[in-house]
Amino acid sequence: MEKKSEEGITVKKQENFSEWFTQVIDKGELVDLRLDIKGFTVIRPWAALVMENMFNYLEKELQKKGHKPTFMPSVIPKENLKKESEHIKGFTPEVFWLKDTGDNKELALRPTSETIYTPMFKFWVRSYRDLPLKLYQRGSVFRLDTKATRPLIRGREFIWIECHDAFSTKEEAEAQVQEDIDTTEKVMHQIYGVPFLPMKRPDWDKFAGAEYTVGSDCFMPDGKLIQQPSTHLMGQKFSRAFDATFKNKEEKEEYLWTTAYGPAVSRILASVIATHGDDSGMIFPYAIAPVQVIIVPIFNAENKEYVLKKSKEILNELEKMEIKTEIDEREYKRPGEKYHIWELKGVPFRIELGDKEIKNKEIVLFTRDTKKKEKLKLIDLKKIPKLGEQFDKRLKEKADKFIEDKIVNCSNKKEIKQALSSGKLAKINFCSTDKNGVACAEIVEKEFSGDVRGTLASKNEKATGNCLFCGKPATKVIYIGKSY
Amino acid sequence: MEKKSEEGITVKKQENFSEWFTQVIDKGELVDLRLDIKGFTVIRPWAALVMENMFNYLEKELQKKGHKPTFMPSVIPKENLKKESEHIKGFTPEVFWLKDTGDNKELALRPTSETIYTPMFKFWVRSYRDLPLKLYQRGSVFRLDTKATRPLIRGREFIWIECHDAFSTKEEAEAQVQEDIDTTEKVMHQIYGVPFLPMKRPDWDKFAGAEYTVGSDCFMPDGKLIQQPSTHLMGQKFSRAFDATFKNKEEKEEYLWTTAYGPAVSRILASVIATHGDDSGMIFPYAIAPVQVIIVPIFNAENKEYVLKKSKEILNELEKMEIKTEIDEREYKRPGEKYHIWELKGVPFRIELGDKEIKNKEIVLFTRDTKKKEKLKLIDLKKIPKLGEQFDKRLKEKADKFIEDKIVNCSNKKEIKQALSSGKLAKINFCSTDKNGVACAEIVEKEFSGDVRGTLASKNEKATGNCLFCGKPATKVIYIGKSY
Repeated sequence: MEKKSEEGITVKKQENFSEWFTQVIDKGELVDLRLDIKGFTVIRPWAALVMENMFNYLEKELQKKGHKPTFMPSVIPKENLKKESEHIKGFTPEVFWLKDTGDNKELALRPTSETIYTPMFKFWVRSYRDLPLKLYQRGSVFRLDTKATRPLIRGREFIWIECHDAFSTKEEAEAQVQEDIDTTEKVMHQIYGVPFLPMKRPDWDKFAGAEYTVGSDCFMPDGKLIQQPSTHLMGQKFSRAFDATFKNKEEKEEYLWTTAYGPAVSRILASVIATHGDDSGMIFPYAIAPVQVIIVPIFNAENKEYVLKKSKEILNELEKMEIKTEIDEREYKRPGEKYHIWELKGVPFRIELGDKEIKNKEIVLFTRDTKKKEKLKLIDLKKIPKLGEQFDKRLKEKADKFIEDKIVNCSNKKEIKQALSSGKLAKINFCSTDKNGVACAEIVEKEFSGDVRGTLASKNEKATGNCLFCGKPATKVIYIGKSY
Repeated sequence: MEKKSEEGITVKKQENFSEWFTQVIDKGELVDLRLDIKGFTVIRPWAALVMENMFNYLEKELQKKGHKPTFMPSVIPKENLKKESEHIKGFTPEVFWLKDTGDNKELALRPTSETIYTPMFKFWVRSYRDLPLKLYQRGSVFRLDTKATRPLIRGREFIWIECHDAFSTKEEAEAQVQEDIDTTEKVMHQIYGVPFLPMKRPDWDKFAGAEYTVGSDCFMPDGKLIQQPSTHLMGQKFSRAFDATFKNKEEKEEYLWTTAYGPAVSRILASVIATHGDDSGMIFPYAIAPVQVIIVPIFNAENKEYVLKKSKEILNELEKMEIKTEIDEREYKRPGEKYHIWELKGVPFRIELGDKEIKNKEIVLFTRDTKKKEKLKLIDLKKIPKLGEQFDKRLKEKADKFIEDKIVNCSNKKEIKQALSSGKLAKINFCSTDKNGVACAEIVEKEFSGDVRGTLASKNEKATGNCLFCGKPATKVIYIGKSY
């Protein structure tokens, strides 16, 4: 089964990131594409286990913030989908339709679920007392993307959480958008170690049906951006379309204010791998690694029983501390092969244990990111959770450092070109992010093969001077980058 | 939002179970049918939270037994579905097909995933060293059922876990079938408190493509049976169809032996509700209740602040013990209304707290199943987890007792008729459960509106005498019941 892993990664991450990523997710046994259905990926246990851990952190944070789970149908009637005109215009080309089921209802596989949650809000919310209502579901959505698909990064089915919230006022809804950004920060950045820039998208790039969208832009090692969780202020657009009202404190009917937030766990996994991995393969944060400590016993026919017994004692001790531990006791593989496999798979710590170590009441501890080996007394095994915390802190700091110098202030086209060609983000003064800016954004795309990613949502940056492209007074400070 | 709950359940469970169930899941805010897509149900937070807890117990038990999670595509190419001839024959009428996506592949929504897992086994298993391989996924499957649908019980989309396992030998595969029955016992019976009879189905009622099927039959309060988790010995049928082989210890290629196990959590939830509920509504086992203790503070304008402060202290103390607790501090509802709502929703314990209780350093504890109120000193709050255990033991014992006298030994048609009409299961000697028994099973269906459910899989019961219907020597002891 691990033949492929044994081959190792044959390219350097910095030299050919795209090929590195393809090899890592294949040889590390995360996904399998041999089922050969365009855009649909088989996610193997190693990836599924990481994703389960990622889901747990996300759901815990969401529940802490008052969200409750639901399970909505995977299909949406056409009549629902078409209620909000911008929404249907945006999503129609991307919808999978079911063949006639004989029930006089045309059904689509859900591309996203605003058009199911909003009509239910109509039933569930009668007065301001029922608000806020914050719901989510974990599940698959389906988009008939006709562009090139890439496993984990861009697919036709992806596994995500979608939150749909309803409020009494616009202020509360806008505060929810900020809370969603905070959730991304607390989970994706603080736990998974993946930094991001919260970008308020230009109008032409917002979610179909939203008032505005804030996307989280993460850097890939080649400098390209990938959008991670986005949060949308729907305003009253969907509630008007579905006539979803509530009685306010003055007993007057008002339309609900709604928001949506969609962290795609399968896609965030791609950023985790891309951000932390190295030339030997993946490196998973201790917090989400399926195996936090792998024990490789070094034995021969003579001392096998004894070494395995001691290995099991260590396993038991670590499991008592709730450390996810496994012993690789396969006899048909040499220790060196095992080291190789578990490094490729990104396990944070490896314990090597042989006769000598047992005699000295110690182990050899290998740390995946620093690749350092050190001796640790058995009595000091209790330090591992602390070492795990430090491990994650190092990964996060390294990732933060990587994006630190990625933003370049540009004042002419040459600088923009230079920034983009060196895998950076060009920051410029720009005419507008509403429809008046479309023409200039098209120039950006044509001249630099880059996108206007939007304005920074975390601070209010004041524009100065004129737009480089049309010469009109600049109203926004925007960021241009290449993207996936 | 709770207007409906306030109305209460208007029928008795024993008098009209079907209506009782419909009211309970609606007024208790478990599901909503107003989206009006035949067979697709909106599952609301209260049900979703119970299901999350149910999933957790199931997945923990499966992982303990060596299963690992995966995420497989929700769609299956037609060419895969039709590989195993009995499988496609059995499932074709029930398949939702997608409209042409322009990729030259006809895709179905998965009705079950043997035809995706088996071709992957072909890639993932090379030798006996890679076995056993035990995988599962949590997700939706879709069946275009044309019969009447009922929320949670029979739908076109249901949310389940499906396990797909591969082994070197038939013996190991058969042992897995027994292990699956043990998982049902450990989780559905021991934790959820729902007893079952493991029935080896007659050949005409097995899973399409299986060698044999063991279904778990649970009783509904009206005496009808509902099939809960089933486990299937696929033998080498699917592995032959997909040419999924492995090298055995003698280096010879052999076909894999496979099994499948499918606990449908949304359907098991129906049995949990049906088994434990009473005329006031649902009763959830302490182990899976979304809220284990609801605190209802009794206050007026004067003492409100003080009573709420004390309530919060109790909440904190209970949460420290990891007891799921909430305070219902809504001012616009009277305590009596609140009692009513939380009884309907099936919360195991209610704490009533007013001035008098605070003064006496005690609480009033209401227990949902016994409906007894008792005083508990604040210092004794630590007894609640123990009381929770006893709560679940009572529910389980009551459920066990309910099915104790449900099996009736019958030796003539009159007795069978009588058993079935009094909501029991008729046990008789029968000619055969292979194709030779089909004609007699048809008589059973016609004369008694009952099904031959199969033979007991948990023990080997020896048949005596002749078949009541054809007069041939009996070879099986079978059970006849009415079913959902």
